[in-house]
Amino acid sequence: MTVNDLLLTGGRPWVPGRPAAAADILIRDGRIETIGPGLSAPDADTLDLAGALVFPGLVDTHCHLDKTLFGAPWTPNTGGRTLTGRIANGEGRRAELGIPSAEYAGNLLGEMIRRGTAHVRSHIDIDPEIGLRGVEAVRAAAARHAGRVDVELVAFPQGGLITRPGTAELLEAALADGVQVVGGLDPAGYDRDPVAHLDVIFGLAEKYGAKVDIHLHDAGSLGAWQFGLIIERTRATGLSGRVAISHAYAMGALPADEQRRIADDLAEAGVAMVTCAVGDAPVVPLRVMHEASAALALGNDGIRDLWTPYGDGDMLRRINTVAFRDRLLADAEIELALAAGTYGGARVLGLERYGLEPGAPADLFAVDAETPAAAVVSVPPRRLVLQRGRIVVRDGTTAQPD
Amino acid sequence: MTVNDLLLTGGRPWVPGRPAAAADILIRDGRIETIGPGLSAPDADTLDLAGALVFPGLVDTHCHLDKTLFGAPWTPNTGGRTLTGRIANGEGRRAELGIPSAEYAGNLLGEMIRRGTAHVRSHIDIDPEIGLRGVEAVRAAAARHAGRVDVELVAFPQGGLITRPGTAELLEAALADGVQVVGGLDPAGYDRDPVAHLDVIFGLAEKYGAKVDIHLHDAGSLGAWQFGLIIERTRATGLSGRVAISHAYAMGALPADEQRRIADDLAEAGVAMVTCAVGDAPVVPLRVMHEASAALALGNDGIRDLWTPYGDGDMLRRINTVAFRDRLLADAEIELALAAGTYGGARVLGLERYGLEPGAPADLFAVDAETPAAAVVSVPPRRLVLQRGRIVVRDGTTAQPD
Repeated sequence: MTVNDLLLTGGRPWVPGRPAAAADILIRDGRIETIGPGLSAPDADTLDLAGALVFPGLVDTHCHLDKTLFGAPWTPNTGGRTLTGRIANGEGRRAELGIPSAEYAGNLLGEMIRRGTAHVRSHIDIDPEIGLRGVEAVRAAAARHAGRVDVELVAFPQGGLITRPGTAELLEAALADGVQVVGGLDPAGYDRDPVAHLDVIFGLAEKYGAKVDIHLHDAGSLGAWQFGLIIERTRATGLSGRVAISHAYAMGALPADEQRRIADDLAEAGVAMVTCAVGDAPVVPLRVMHEASAALALGNDGIRDLWTPYGDGDMLRRINTVAFRDRLLADAEIELALAAGTYGGARVLGLERYGLEPGAPADLFAVDAETPAAAVVSVPPRRLVLQRGRIVVRDGTTAQPD
Repeated sequence: MTVNDLLLTGGRPWVPGRPAAAADILIRDGRIETIGPGLSAPDADTLDLAGALVFPGLVDTHCHLDKTLFGAPWTPNTGGRTLTGRIANGEGRRAELGIPSAEYAGNLLGEMIRRGTAHVRSHIDIDPEIGLRGVEAVRAAAARHAGRVDVELVAFPQGGLITRPGTAELLEAALADGVQVVGGLDPAGYDRDPVAHLDVIFGLAEKYGAKVDIHLHDAGSLGAWQFGLIIERTRATGLSGRVAISHAYAMGALPADEQRRIADDLAEAGVAMVTCAVGDAPVVPLRVMHEASAALALGNDGIRDLWTPYGDGDMLRRINTVAFRDRLLADAEIELALAAGTYGGARVLGLERYGLEPGAPADLFAVDAETPAAAVVSVPPRRLVLQRGRIVVRDGTTAQPD
C-alpha cells in the first residue's frame, strides 16, 4: 500500500529534555526522511501545523484487548474487590457477553489509534476453557487495523499456571503459534509456587525466543522478594532487555532507599517495569527509575471490561493520570511520564526504529499546547495523527474511519 | 434580569439510587416548576434532550480561585515537595505573577460554569502581606459571572494562624466584611498549637455566625487525633452541620473499623469531609461515609497555580478521578461519587433549595450517556448547561460567552 509523501511545516517536534523548537518534518514512503527548519519538497503534500507540538506515536505497553467490551452496551461491574473473585467473575461471565470479541477489541484498537497510539502490547487470557480463542480474536482485530498499529501479544495465564493444570501447555502452543511474549501472574501470592512458576515461563521464553512480562500485584515484602527472583532469572537466562514486571505494586510503597537499590538492580539486569496507575494502587516511581536509567513503560490496563468499567484507550490521558498520581510537578518531571509513554514503551517492546528521527516510521501526533508538560496536563484533542505516514486524524477529525 | 421559560423534553433526570427514567422538566422564572412525563407548555421555549441524562448543577466545594493562573501563559512549577516549601514558593512568586487576579479567577469560574458547576466554595489566602486582596479579586470575578454561579468564600490562613501574627485579625476583618466561612490549616502539624488554633477559628465562627472549613493534611494518628478535636469543638459550639474537614488525608489510610467509627462520629456531630483525590494522597472512603450517612463533598482543589500545574475546572472529571481512585466499581458505588459532587456539596454548603425537584433553581446539565455511572466513566461533553434557568451551553456550544 502506498501513501503520499508529506511535508509537515511549522510544528515543534518534541525531543525529551530539550525545549521544543520549530522544525519541519519530511515524510517519504511512510518514514521520516528529514527533520529540520525550512525544508522544501514540492512533490509532497504539505500540512501546516501552525506551532503545534509533535510527539512520536504513543505506546500502550499493558492492556487487555481480549477482555474489552468497548462499544458494547454499558455493562455494570459485578467483579467485587478480591483478585480471586474478579478472576472467577471474568471467567464466569465472558461467554454470556461474547468475549473475547474481535469486534470489541477492534473498536478499542480503532479508538487507541485515533488518540495517537502506534504500538500496543496486549495480554491475552489463556486457560483450558478459553484456549487460544483470545489470540485469534485479537489477531483478527489487529488485522482490521493493519498498517496503522502494531500489536504484540502476551500469552497470559490469568487463571493461574501451576494452579491450573493444562495452562502451561496452552502457553507453549501460543508461543509455537507466534505469540511473542510469555506472561506470568503473581508467582507467589496467586500461583503459590514462585519457583515452579518461573521455571515454566522462563523455560518457555528460552525455548521459543520469547519475551517475558509478569503481572505482579503482590504487595510489600512478598512483592519485593519476587523482584529479586525475576532479576536473578533474567541474569541466569541471558534475557536482559526482554523481561518486564507489570504493575509491580510493591515498588511504589517501598522506602526510597530500597526503591533506588531495586531500580539499580533492574537497570543492571535489563528488567523493565510497566505501571498503569490503576485506582489507588501504588505507581512505580518515575523519578527513581529515571535516575537509575531503568526501563519504565506505561499502559491503560483493562478498559471497559469485566474487571473495570473505566478507561477510554487514550494513552495521553493515562500519561496525565500517571504524572498526577506520581506527583510529577516540574516540567522536566512531567516529561518523564511522556517519555515513559513513548520512548520507554519502545524500549520495552524492543522497537529498532522509533521516535521523531530520520529513518523511523512516521508514527506521530500533533496537539495544540504551549509545552510538552502543558500537553500532559491539558490532554488536548489530537489535531493530527499519522500512522506509518498515513493520515488517521486531520484537523481533529478522523480521516480514515475503519 | 428575566429568562425565558423552558420546557426540556425527552431527558432522563437523575435521581440518586434509582434508574434514570424519561421525564420532562418545566422551568419558569429560573426555577424548576414541574418534572414528569408528557408535560406541555405552549408559552415556553422547548428543547429536546433526545434521551440525554440530566444532572443537577455540580458543586465544587474545595478550590482556590485566588491562586489560579487559569488563562495565563504556561507557568512551570517551582513549588517543590514539602508543605512549608510550597507555602513559601506561593507567597514568594505571587506578586511577580499578578495573583490574586480577578481576571484569572474569572477565567476559571467561566470554565467551571461551562462544565456545569453551579456552586463553588473557594478558600482565599489571607496573611499580613496579602491582606484581603484575594477576597476582593474573587468577589470581582464572581461579579463577572453573577447569576450563573454562587461563590462562597473561606478566609483561609494558608501561611499559618498562631504561627503568623496578625493573621487572626485579618480573618476577623474578612468575616466582618461578609466572608461566610473561616478556614484553618493543620492546627497541629503546621500551626503547632492545635488548641489555640481551634480557639481562634471556632471563636470567630461563633462571633460572626460563620461556617468552618479546616485543611487537614496531617497524616496518621496526628491527623486522626485532630478529627476528634474538631468533632468535640463542633459539639461544644453547637455548629453541627456547619463544619467541614478538607482533605482529611488520615481518614483514607486508617483501618476500616476506625474509619467506620470516625464516620459515625462525624455524622452524629454534623461534621463533613471534603475530598479532592489529589496526586497520591488518600481519598476519604466514599462507601464508609455513605454507610454512616456522614456528609461528604468533593472539590478540584488547586487548578493551574503555583501549587500544582494540573486541573481543568471540570467537576465531572474530578468525580471520575475520585471514583477511580476510591475503586468504586459497581454502578451504585460510582453514583456515590456523583452524589458527593452534587447533593453532598449542597449539604456542606447548606443550600436550602437544590436538585432536580420543583422549587429548586434550574441549575442543571445534560450529557449523552447510557447510565449515570457511564457518565462518570466517560466524562462526556456537556450537551446542555443551564444556570438559574439560563442557557449557558447548548448543543455543546457556549451560548453566553462572558
